[in-house]
Amino acid sequence: MMIEQSTRLFRFLTNGPAFLDISRDVVAWVRDCDAREVLLTLHVKHTSCSLTIQENADPDVQRDLLTALDGFAPRDARYRHNSEGPDDMPAHIRAMLTATSLSIPVIGGEVQLGTWQGIYLIEHRDAPHTREIAAHLSFER
Amino acid sequence: MMIEQSTRLFRFLTNGPAFLDISRDVVAWVRDCDAREVLLTLHVKHTSCSLTIQENADPDVQRDLLTALDGFAPRDARYRHNSEGPDDMPAHIRAMLTATSLSIPVIGGEVQLGTWQGIYLIEHRDAPHTREIAAHLSFER
Amino acid sequence: MMIEQSTRLFRFLTNGPAFLDISRDVVAWVRDCDAREVLLTLHVKHTSCSLTIQENADPDVQRDLLTALDGFAPRDARYRHNSEGPDDMPAHIRAMLTATSLSIPVIGGEVQLGTWQGIYLIEHRDAPHTREIAAHLSFER
Repeated sequence: MMIEQSTRLFRFLTNGPAFLDISRDVVAWVRDCDAREVLLTLHVKHTSCSLTIQENADPDVQRDLLTALDGFAPRDARYRHNSEGPDDMPAHIRAMLTATSLSIPVIGGEVQLGTWQGIYLIEHRDAPHTREIAAHLSFER
Repeated sequence: MMIEQSTRLFRFLTNGPAFLDISRDVVAWVRDCDAREVLLTLHVKHTSCSLTIQENADPDVQRDLLTALDGFAPRDARYRHNSEGPDDMPAHIRAMLTATSLSIPVIGGEVQLGTWQGIYLIEHRDAPHTREIAAHLSFER
Repeated sequence: MMIEQSTRLFRFLTNGPAFLDISRDVVAWVRDCDAREVLLTLHVKHTSCSLTIQENADPDVQRDLLTALDGFAPRDARYRHNSEGPDDMPAHIRAMLTATSLSIPVIGGEVQLGTWQGIYLIEHRDAPHTREIAAHLSFER
């Protein structure tokens, strides 16, 4: 038995504040690696977008989550840091409240997402962005 | 020296909104594995409960944390997603604000929890649930 | 090829509510380990300070984030747990909303922080504290 480590950079295009489901790409990569008992880790390389694992059934859940994030960090509050536009500081706050990195065990070759769980990249900025996610996998052969 | 990986599914019964201390079960599993220099990772397979590491001394801390979570995601706010009851959308928001996965180094066989740290499963729904947590451990022999 | 695991305890002195940039110490340790394809994990061993990855360019961002955290958990709210001073329960809430552990892939020897990302220890208490962070690295030789 040998343990190997795989790493990969994912790139995703975003188009304004929204939840982007990246589960399919991530799960496909784990399958391609033929990994069985493994730890999968994702880390988003930005501070104005973030990661979360959330319900993948009713799209209204994502709308309500965006509304909640908007309430936690309103665009019209007074921020010291406002040189990058009114959507920037709220984006940092929303990123701080959600996740920058996620780790999910893989058991018997299956990424251990629950039935109703999806992995989401949450874009917090208004303008389109290319977002990078660094992924890591350690596995036995 | 060889590195092995262990995975396990934990199941916990919950009974309404509360902090359930799962530290004892998790630490016991790490001890059973006889792991020394290790990374321990936990991932909860649901989106209406979550994980946190919090103070384990004064139970009032947990009550105050529940009150705070209630304030962040009130049950009586207007949500689009309300088909699963008034406790469901607040549960998703509370899960988003806390953690879905946690990783804790093990050094010299000791899970590196601080003296006042406990690992908690936070139930956000009203009804009793069986909750699954996927655990991963990589260790040297 | 062989995989080894390194662990380390970092200690940092804090001096009141602030963001302490610990990126340099962490990255230097990874370099000293001569690690290439790796997973780096940090876990803070306390419940009244926490970790976050945030913008490292404009110090005003950190000031705005502290203001936001203050708004989420005001010092003058009524808490049951108040025996350790008015800054204690807000500290626990702020810790719950941010991160206790972070995992970042290392690819080709480079910790995968984005250009504008720094790793921060956020102190939430008023008094100076010595804070411990347990670190884990698995790497191939």
